[in-house]
Amino acid sequence: MENNIGVLVLGHGSSLPYNKEVVSAVAEMIGNGDGNMVVKTAFLNLDTPTLHEGLKSFEGTGIEKIVALPCFLAPGVHTTQDIPRVLGIKEGENQTTVKLGDSEIELLYAQPLGADSCIANLARERIGEVLQE
Amino acid sequence: MENNIGVLVLGHGSSLPYNKEVVSAVAEMIGNGDGNMVVKTAFLNLDTPTLHEGLKSFEGTGIEKIVALPCFLAPGVHTTQDIPRVLGIKEGENQTTVKLGDSEIELLYAQPLGADSCIANLARERIGEVLQE
Repeated sequence: MENNIGVLVLGHGSSLPYNKEVVSAVAEMIGNGDGNMVVKTAFLNLDTPTLHEGLKSFEGTGIEKIVALPCFLAPGVHTTQDIPRVLGIKEGENQTTVKLGDSEIELLYAQPLGADSCIANLARERIGEVLQE
Repeated sequence: MENNIGVLVLGHGSSLPYNKEVVSAVAEMIGNGDGNMVVKTAFLNLDTPTLHEGLKSFEGTGIEKIVALPCFLAPGVHTTQDIPRVLGIKEGENQTTVKLGDSEIELLYAQPLGADSCIANLARERIGEVLQE
């Protein structure tokens, strides 16, 4: 992966604490062992930092590019419309620039997680747990 | 895992097709290679089958127990209140019985996926993809 990447992990947000806890834990794991990546979190609704606060949090970190990653299982209205609107990304596009301090830097918008066998394996763990209780 | 388990994979549902596609793909992967498990899907909002239709879809399959698995990253209002209410599970509990044809069978309610290093690995794949475009 390139150097000096800022990753903004975007959560849905919730009135309960669990979404923020899970998104924050995933964000920490994304950054683990990669000194070239600065990982921050932001939330669409109900939790903070907001998306704008999340972008601003990269000021002074020396990152040269930001990747916004929606920590959602599947694309939906939030990931295809709401988040791009707040980030200033046109619908159907995945790139813009943002002002960070005195610089304009590139903001790339990643896809959500998607279906993967690792999700199915996690699901099987959860199924196994409730059967053993 | 025990024999003759029905797994009802519960999705959020969406006005866009992607949530149903991802939840259905994960459900198919959960069942792959396990002949003792019957896997079905159901959706809380906007998509079908509904939760009640999903439960009913196990009629005639010979399953002896159902595990309802919320295909959500984190617990939230949907998984702790809305889904249990529809399934007839008291808040804070994870078990009830449901009528399936002429039988009463046990319905267990699993936890959502939760934070896991495999989710972080998937996220890193998505980040790598958008950086390479």
